[in-house]
Amino acid sequence: MGETCWSEFELIDTFFNMPSADLPDEIIAGIGDDAAVIRPDGKTPLLVTNDLMIEDVHYRAAWMSPFDLARKLVRINVSDIAAMGGQPAFGLLSIGLPSPLGENWLQDFSGGLSQAFKTFGITLIGGDTSQSPGPVIVALTLMGKAINGAFVPRHSPRPRDTLYVTGTLGDAAAGLTILESQTEDSPSHRNTREAFLITRHIAPTPRVAVAGEIAARQLASCMIDISDGLVADLGHLLEKSDLGAEISLESIPLSPAFRDTASGCNPSPELLILEGGEDYELLFTSPIQPEKMAKEIAGVPLTPIGTITDNKGIRIFKDGALFPVGTGGFKHQFKQKDSNHE
Amino acid sequence: MGETCWSEFELIDTFFNMPSADLPDEIIAGIGDDAAVIRPDGKTPLLVTNDLMIEDVHYRAAWMSPFDLARKLVRINVSDIAAMGGQPAFGLLSIGLPSPLGENWLQDFSGGLSQAFKTFGITLIGGDTSQSPGPVIVALTLMGKAINGAFVPRHSPRPRDTLYVTGTLGDAAAGLTILESQTEDSPSHRNTREAFLITRHIAPTPRVAVAGEIAARQLASCMIDISDGLVADLGHLLEKSDLGAEISLESIPLSPAFRDTASGCNPSPELLILEGGEDYELLFTSPIQPEKMAKEIAGVPLTPIGTITDNKGIRIFKDGALFPVGTGGFKHQFKQKDSNHE
Repeated sequence: MGETCWSEFELIDTFFNMPSADLPDEIIAGIGDDAAVIRPDGKTPLLVTNDLMIEDVHYRAAWMSPFDLARKLVRINVSDIAAMGGQPAFGLLSIGLPSPLGENWLQDFSGGLSQAFKTFGITLIGGDTSQSPGPVIVALTLMGKAINGAFVPRHSPRPRDTLYVTGTLGDAAAGLTILESQTEDSPSHRNTREAFLITRHIAPTPRVAVAGEIAARQLASCMIDISDGLVADLGHLLEKSDLGAEISLESIPLSPAFRDTASGCNPSPELLILEGGEDYELLFTSPIQPEKMAKEIAGVPLTPIGTITDNKGIRIFKDGALFPVGTGGFKHQFKQKDSNHE
Repeated sequence: MGETCWSEFELIDTFFNMPSADLPDEIIAGIGDDAAVIRPDGKTPLLVTNDLMIEDVHYRAAWMSPFDLARKLVRINVSDIAAMGGQPAFGLLSIGLPSPLGENWLQDFSGGLSQAFKTFGITLIGGDTSQSPGPVIVALTLMGKAINGAFVPRHSPRPRDTLYVTGTLGDAAAGLTILESQTEDSPSHRNTREAFLITRHIAPTPRVAVAGEIAARQLASCMIDISDGLVADLGHLLEKSDLGAEISLESIPLSPAFRDTASGCNPSPELLILEGGEDYELLFTSPIQPEKMAKEIAGVPLTPIGTITDNKGIRIFKDGALFPVGTGGFKHQFKQKDSNHE
């Protein structure tokens, strides 16, 4: 929250949390998980999440078309449902648009929304539209189903569990760094590596199939999607326990594009990997040892990166020595510009 | 949508509607009703709605405290659930806040939210928080239950049904007119009538108990809450049919405060009554004739104001003569001011 220095989690904890003892029986998971889990009829669990995107806070119109924006809005919400092991089903869209945006903008946004909804089997069931006095505001509420009633919570790591991640980390943050550093004079043609990293930021791939398999095969004791960054999201996994974690920096899976490109980046590659966020890969804990764990699921690699420990705190090791990390995660802040379109 | 001239309904229809043949079986009512109705397990219907409020579009910080804002956000969403005859149950909150707003703002907002949630039996189960580069943005997704599985749809009026409204109309629009006309020099002390009208705008009363009774006793063939204005919302009731409606202006119930105050108002009292909106009263159709209909439910008066006709169009009569009304409803537009708080 900028100058007031509330992180999202502090803010929710301070102003919007309720002790879980107050939760009605039909709420299985409430605030603080990737998605809420409710069982309105005492039987079928329903997953519910929502995420909003605001122009010049979450993206720049210069490098996200309305189509891209709609697609990313859907994908980041799908990722929250996936992180519980669920399948997305129903969406409600809220949009606030500044006056000068007209039919072309809406046509393009609606195209991205339809395509993403079709990809993930989502039906639009409602929403709200409004004028906005400044930025474009889009918010999606997404409801999903826990297949066979099974879902993977966020807050139940166990000591000596192994920590796994899907895919590769740091790509989206490196892509954002490239986008933010581009100027009027930047070449419009990107090399393949840069294009890959930028795509990882603009069009992240929620790991629905992988997460569904992890839930169905009961491979994970808990799971989260990496949206805020590895260290921050690992912190969320641990926050309701007295446990800690140790990670080996060398074991974190990196893409060839990241290895080739990020060494010249500012922030440092380590910061992008540990605190960059928005990769929307899965981070999960499992009692299954690496030698017995699947090497990949649905074509996506699973990589062991560390273990859950009895003592609190997150310790990152590089070449066997403790590597210093921030406590809260890399808080990306766009420089504010005039937000009034008129 | 301001200069682009899309009404909310045109916009949804053009860009976000899907033919109902595409809806999965488990979606009983989708876009265009007060709330969506889903039956994820094929049994218990769940109602879902969302509404957003944006500073300087839906309210002014000058006359809505954060407490008032939270309370109204909850109440307008509750009204959508009530208009289906349902009971609210679970909420997800999304907020975008400009940096300078700090702890006091959040404390006050959170107080209003808690109080309203307690009043209506709602549990907060999730949400999202973000910085905003300009206006305060608050959005609530509210899920509710159809008691005993019964709910009242929006789109099934029948010829010769009587049209009924709860409470009185025009109050909230008159209250808004008073608020918008106030200047630095306005007296801080309001007379009782003005205070009543302003309260009707700032803290509308969703008709949950009345609507629940109407649903349980199967009094209505269709129902909507009056948020956009009587003519516009009646238009929504009729939009999927080939039917029309006739209304007698004299029969529309008015509060003593409205009668005393609004005659001097600009816009005219008739415009406030017919097109003002935000009263959050119920408008419903019923085959039950006025002489057999309850005069009030849960202490709230029910008033017959007209009938459903075989011929399309909405006709308003004043002193027996046709009274001209706009087709789309009174579109309140706040004058835009600098939306940047920094």
